[in-house]
Amino acid sequence: MRDMQHIRVDNCSIERTLAVVGEKWTLLVLREAFNGVRRFADLQARTGAPRQVLSARLAGLVAEGLLRKEPYQEPGQRQRDEYRLTQKGLDLYPIMIALIQWGDRYVADPEGPAVVVTHRDCGEPVEVRLQCVKGHEVGGAREATARPGPGLRLRSA
Amino acid sequence: MRDMQHIRVDNCSIERTLAVVGEKWTLLVLREAFNGVRRFADLQARTGAPRQVLSARLAGLVAEGLLRKEPYQEPGQRQRDEYRLTQKGLDLYPIMIALIQWGDRYVADPEGPAVVVTHRDCGEPVEVRLQCVKGHEVGGAREATARPGPGLRLRSA
Repeated sequence: MRDMQHIRVDNCSIERTLAVVGEKWTLLVLREAFNGVRRFADLQARTGAPRQVLSARLAGLVAEGLLRKEPYQEPGQRQRDEYRLTQKGLDLYPIMIALIQWGDRYVADPEGPAVVVTHRDCGEPVEVRLQCVKGHEVGGAREATARPGPGLRLRSA
Repeated sequence: MRDMQHIRVDNCSIERTLAVVGEKWTLLVLREAFNGVRRFADLQARTGAPRQVLSARLAGLVAEGLLRKEPYQEPGQRQRDEYRLTQKGLDLYPIMIALIQWGDRYVADPEGPAVVVTHRDCGEPVEVRLQCVKGHEVGGAREATARPGPGLRLRSA
């Protein structure tokens, strides 16, 4: 069996996912979307992104199908768009929780996490766990093996 | 209770984690480290990172404590350093798996995933699952709530 150490994957899912969400402002916009922030002015105030950068990132997220636009109109104002997470966007949630979990462990202030994410039903903290599809707990990288999958394309040197 | 929608967190774990690992080459170097690639020349060949960029990223990862240097010497050559994941680095694994999982679903080629990560013991695919610490399955963002934690610092407007 070929070992991942000796092949160069051309169509890596990590690399492709980073191409969609890996940029700093993009991830911070998505963080705010998960917090329920939907309007341009609010997203701008909360991320601190420059207006044109935010505008470009939102357009990109809509084009990628992670956010969709929904018109709204305040009395006496022109119609504007809200930005809402699609299912494809909502499915980024485990990535967000994995980032929070590592960050809370290694880069949080000594007082503890800034934000605690809890299960709506029981109020207990939410975490990501590694499991195999048979339900076995996977303790970490050393208990897992990466193998070439059905869609593997090799990169030429 | 204050709602995350109305506060600006100054010490967000997502933002701090991205500051450590959010840069594209950094994450690709870490991907290769998880694949068992440890030497500069191999890391360079496999990530395609320019030499100086790779050198800077490796130094950063060592300074942050995600990689450690281990000397090695091939016969007839000078001593060089290998780069190995520390526990802090190994603990990024759930982030990697979460990225792969989303990518396999939304940006993989029609033939399927390029890489399959399996449980070493049973050979079944590995996945991240959202759970609360009581063990309840958390179906997604809509079943979770973000609340201010003990270390919350607010950002001034």
